[in-house]
Amino acid sequence: MTEAPARGPYAKSAARRSEIIASATAVFGTHGYRGGSLRQIAKQLDLSLTTVMHHFPTKVSLLAAVLSQEDAADTDFSERAARDGFIPTVLTIVERNLGRRELVRMFTVVQAEATHADHEAHAWLRARYADVIPEYAAAIDYDRSLGRVTATTDAAMLADLVIGMWEGIQVRWLADGTDPVAAMRVALDALLLPAPVSAAGR
Amino acid sequence: MTEAPARGPYAKSAARRSEIIASATAVFGTHGYRGGSLRQIAKQLDLSLTTVMHHFPTKVSLLAAVLSQEDAADTDFSERAARDGFIPTVLTIVERNLGRRELVRMFTVVQAEATHADHEAHAWLRARYADVIPEYAAAIDYDRSLGRVTATTDAAMLADLVIGMWEGIQVRWLADGTDPVAAMRVALDALLLPAPVSAAGR
Repeated sequence: MTEAPARGPYAKSAARRSEIIASATAVFGTHGYRGGSLRQIAKQLDLSLTTVMHHFPTKVSLLAAVLSQEDAADTDFSERAARDGFIPTVLTIVERNLGRRELVRMFTVVQAEATHADHEAHAWLRARYADVIPEYAAAIDYDRSLGRVTATTDAAMLADLVIGMWEGIQVRWLADGTDPVAAMRVALDALLLPAPVSAAGR
Repeated sequence: MTEAPARGPYAKSAARRSEIIASATAVFGTHGYRGGSLRQIAKQLDLSLTTVMHHFPTKVSLLAAVLSQEDAADTDFSERAARDGFIPTVLTIVERNLGRRELVRMFTVVQAEATHADHEAHAWLRARYADVIPEYAAAIDYDRSLGRVTATTDAAMLADLVIGMWEGIQVRWLADGTDPVAAMRVALDALLLPAPVSAAGR
């Protein structure tokens, strides 16, 4: 945090916005986006509906703010993967997610709802896959060029599988606490680091 | 179908129940269990709320009926895996799921909500993992004893990963149509059939 702290009404307004976003994360993570309401969010914060709507005039404007929380945290993925390798970079994010369980839950619930073509976050969900998969595929290809990844499978397919597996493993963690870091480590190694095929091999 | 068809009022009642379960599957798959209501389900079928409640007095009794649909379809997993092998048996279910998209979506949405400890389906979700994982692990171990699986990783971990990966891959399919059969085939091979380590290997 190198920014000077904001003062006065602006700081108050920014704090209020953050508070509303945090409450919406919990409400959407419990009731889904469709089942949640601005009224519930206002009630949870002991604010009037009018105050909440001053900051977020519509539920969908609040959804956009809620969903942009994660993206902000992952903007430097490509740089980190080039430096540290794809596998360690993914594992670092899985570990960091251990400390933001309700955010992960909200994404899991909203994402499941948003698979519907007429859901308010459907375009967001598809854009997210369309952005992340080429980014991951490029990082996997780069690691392959350095010998840090030995799998010969198409990089876009590997990226698909990493994303899919990651989401499923996080659902399990949310449900019963199964360690997602251990699971992801085994899965990433199996997918990306197969043993070299022996001369007598397949 | 070897049973004689039921007749008269019982048959009518059974048909009505199936109709309500199908409507609830669509409503819970769209709005979640928490966001869905008996009223919406009644409206979709053009029935009175009283008629729906005659068959399912509470929303949670309907949830139980909705969730038991999948289990019924997978009761012979172990027998089929012992006969045909674990990988082909899983792939057959993934393929069959292509034809029951709204059922898969309902499970995905309800499962995400049900990760919450206080959700009505939380116990169901945990029991499902507790049942399926040992069953899959046993099938993997059996295949290993026959040489049909060559991975040396702990079978319970492999079962965890297969389940996690499968769920994530299905979310992706629901979102943008990415072929889940192709993805599962690559993922299952990578996890369960690693190349033999060469003499000069790791």
